[in-house]
Amino acid sequence: MATLEFFYDFVSPYSYLASTQVEALAARTGAALRWRPFLLGGVLKATDNKAPAETPAKYAHVKVDSARWAKRLGVPFAFAPSHPFSTVLAMRCALAAERHGKLVPFTHAAFRAAWVEGQDLSKPEALAAVAASVGLDGPALVASAPEFKAALTASTEEAVRRGTFGAPTFFVGEELFVGNDRLDFVEAALRTG
Amino acid sequence: MATLEFFYDFVSPYSYLASTQVEALAARTGAALRWRPFLLGGVLKATDNKAPAETPAKYAHVKVDSARWAKRLGVPFAFAPSHPFSTVLAMRCALAAERHGKLVPFTHAAFRAAWVEGQDLSKPEALAAVAASVGLDGPALVASAPEFKAALTASTEEAVRRGTFGAPTFFVGEELFVGNDRLDFVEAALRTG
Repeated sequence: MATLEFFYDFVSPYSYLASTQVEALAARTGAALRWRPFLLGGVLKATDNKAPAETPAKYAHVKVDSARWAKRLGVPFAFAPSHPFSTVLAMRCALAAERHGKLVPFTHAAFRAAWVEGQDLSKPEALAAVAASVGLDGPALVASAPEFKAALTASTEEAVRRGTFGAPTFFVGEELFVGNDRLDFVEAALRTG
Repeated sequence: MATLEFFYDFVSPYSYLASTQVEALAARTGAALRWRPFLLGGVLKATDNKAPAETPAKYAHVKVDSARWAKRLGVPFAFAPSHPFSTVLAMRCALAAERHGKLVPFTHAAFRAAWVEGQDLSKPEALAAVAASVGLDGPALVASAPEFKAALTASTEEAVRRGTFGAPTFFVGEELFVGNDRLDFVEAALRTG
């Protein structure tokens, strides 16, 4: 069985869009899906790349473009008012949720909180609420986040070592695809690979 | 009748890919197509954006990704061995060709020279050969290029003023789309607008 690895960061609107599609894509292609939290800021720093938010004209286009994508995909979307927000704590919390077997529901809830409900995921209380909404002890989960510092760094460094420069990042084996707009290439690779 | 404006630079592989699609798209939607040479380097400088070639991991992905696109579109493609090459002279030559009523054939021939035949379009002799292949006096066209310095700057500044940050750039009215991978949004805008 082929495996689709999905590296994502809650700060990335295109990662949110991809998160609404990858499960159906994996089901259609019979692929195993691995959800891989990582830190986009770390990827950008390691690759000397820039965030779209650093280039005003690009950032303005991202806001329009991500809304076009949401409309096409038929998913709820509102550009996060607090964007760009720090996700160091949030991505560590995702790894903490994984230890409790709740990575996928936590991930969907966190993306929804940021990209549908407009919450600021840099805030511990927002993350605690996300955790509680999927049956976890919110304050305890957030308090455990520092334990996952090394794991988040390792995941980020792994993605960089394997060639990425942005988010969302997909791997089919070692074949790299970057961007929500490359999911049809991902699907083709899973069908032929 | 709606108008589709297509801003492009020969240095951009995604502009080449778009150049193979825009005429059929305009025909399908009944849109008038305007070919708009501009200078991507000027756009990047004005918007404080970076070229993909400046970020090694991104550049490596562009090489793989542009080939995937060419395969999907069924168009010939070989990543230009001299990339990134200066296109200041080449884009001025495109405007010179426009004065002779040959903008579109010159554009197709230049893209093919760079992205199929592997020629270095920074070289005056390569541009003269492209011009000659579409029935123009090659050396005379290249010699006239300096006359189009101001027009190329104006086109580039216009695209920046209207919001772009990269290439290819499309406008449907003042609605902006950036990237070969946004042509289906362009088509939807032409159908509904």
